[in-house]
Amino acid sequence: MDTPNPAKRGRPRKTQAPRRAPGRPAAADNPDLRERLLDAAIACYARQGIAATSLRAIAAEAGVNPALLHYYFGDKQQLQDAVSNERLVPVFLSLRDGLLGASTDVFDLIAGFVSGVGGIVAKHPWLPSLWVREVLCEGGALRESILFKKIGPVLPQAMAKRFAQAQAEGRINADLDPRLLMVSLIGLTLFPAASAPIWRFMFDAQDLDLDAQRRHALALLDRGLMP
Amino acid sequence: MDTPNPAKRGRPRKTQAPRRAPGRPAAADNPDLRERLLDAAIACYARQGIAATSLRAIAAEAGVNPALLHYYFGDKQQLQDAVSNERLVPVFLSLRDGLLGASTDVFDLIAGFVSGVGGIVAKHPWLPSLWVREVLCEGGALRESILFKKIGPVLPQAMAKRFAQAQAEGRINADLDPRLLMVSLIGLTLFPAASAPIWRFMFDAQDLDLDAQRRHALALLDRGLMP
Repeated sequence: MDTPNPAKRGRPRKTQAPRRAPGRPAAADNPDLRERLLDAAIACYARQGIAATSLRAIAAEAGVNPALLHYYFGDKQQLQDAVSNERLVPVFLSLRDGLLGASTDVFDLIAGFVSGVGGIVAKHPWLPSLWVREVLCEGGALRESILFKKIGPVLPQAMAKRFAQAQAEGRINADLDPRLLMVSLIGLTLFPAASAPIWRFMFDAQDLDLDAQRRHALALLDRGLMP
Repeated sequence: MDTPNPAKRGRPRKTQAPRRAPGRPAAADNPDLRERLLDAAIACYARQGIAATSLRAIAAEAGVNPALLHYYFGDKQQLQDAVSNERLVPVFLSLRDGLLGASTDVFDLIAGFVSGVGGIVAKHPWLPSLWVREVLCEGGALRESILFKKIGPVLPQAMAKRFAQAQAEGRINADLDPRLLMVSLIGLTLFPAASAPIWRFMFDAQDLDLDAQRRHALALLDRGLMP
C-alpha cells in the first residue's frame, strides 16, 4: 500500500470518461491507492478528529495532491461517508454476524464478544481513539450516523435480550441489570483499549497487551455473572 | 448564583486599587460572581471542549462582559488553570482522601470507590463529558496536567497496590490483574456515566439512574472478585 504511485503527481481523471492528457499516467483508478487514501483519512480522523480534518491534511498524510482525493471521493462529507461505509460498518458487521449467528450459550456469547472486540482492536488500532472522539464525545461526528441509524443498536439490543433471558432462566447473577451488563462489556473491552496510553503510563504496564486485557475481563465476568 | 449582578454591565476594576469611576457599581470583587464565571467556563468546556472555548463564549454563557472575565482570571490559560485548581482538583482530592484514609478492607475500598464516583457525578454532572473530551481523547487539554502531574496517579496506584496485596493474601480472584482491575473500576463507573446518553437512548433506559448503575457495578464486582 505504500508503493509510490504514478498518479501521485498526476491530475485525477476517470477511466470511464477518458480525458487523459497526453503523457499523463493512467493510474488514477487504482484500488490500492483508494485504500491508501482511506487509511490516511482514518489516521487523520483518529488523531485530530473528523471535524478538524481537512481534505488537504488527508492528502498530505497520503502524500498525494488534494485533487486526487476530490477525484476519488468528492467532498469532505462524501469522503467521511466512504470511510464510514467501507471501513467502520464492515468492522461492526463482522463482530455482529460472528456473535449473533453462533451459539446461544450466554457465557459463550460474552467470551465471543470480549475476544471479538480484542480482535478488532488488534486489527484496527485506530478504532478505540476514533470511538472516543467521534462516538463517546458529545457532538462526535459518528455518534448519530453510526450508532443510532445503520448498525449501532442491533447487537447491543440483541445481547441485552439474551442476558435478560439467561437471567430469567436463573443462569446468571440475578442482581445484574441486563442492559447495564452490555454497557459493562464495552467498559471492560473497548474502554480499556482506548485508555491504554493513560494506564500504561500510570502503572508502567507495557507488559499488559490485548491478550492480558481479554483474560482479565473474562476472569472478572465469568465469576461476576455466576448465579 | 443566578441573581443579576450589578457588575454585569460595569467595567472590571480591582477593589485593592480603587480606581472606581463615579457612579460605577462597586460589585466586581464578588465571590458569587466568580463562582458563576467558573460554572460558565465548566459548562462551555464540557459542551464544546477547552480548546474550542473562547473567553467570549464563556462571557456570553455567564451573561457578562468579556472584560469581567479578564478582570477575574486574566487570559484563557489562566482561567483554565483556575477551573482546574478550584473545581477539578478538589473533586478528585475529596474522592482520594475519603478512600485512602478509610478502612483497609479491599471490598470496602471498592464499594467506596464505586459509591464515591457515583456521588461525584451526581454532584457535578459536567464531569463525565469533560473527562471524555479532555482526558480520554488524545490531545485533551487536561490529560497531562491533571492526570500525570497533580493528582492523577496517586489514588489509582495506591488502589492497584492494595488489590495486589489482597490477591497475594488470597482474598480476591487470583486470575485478575490488579492494575487492570483499577481500569475496570473506571470502566464500570465513570465510563457508564459518560456514555449514559447513548445507552439510555439505545435501551430506552430512562429508569436506570446513578443508583441503579452503582448497584449493578457492585453486583458484578462483588462476585467477580471472589477468590
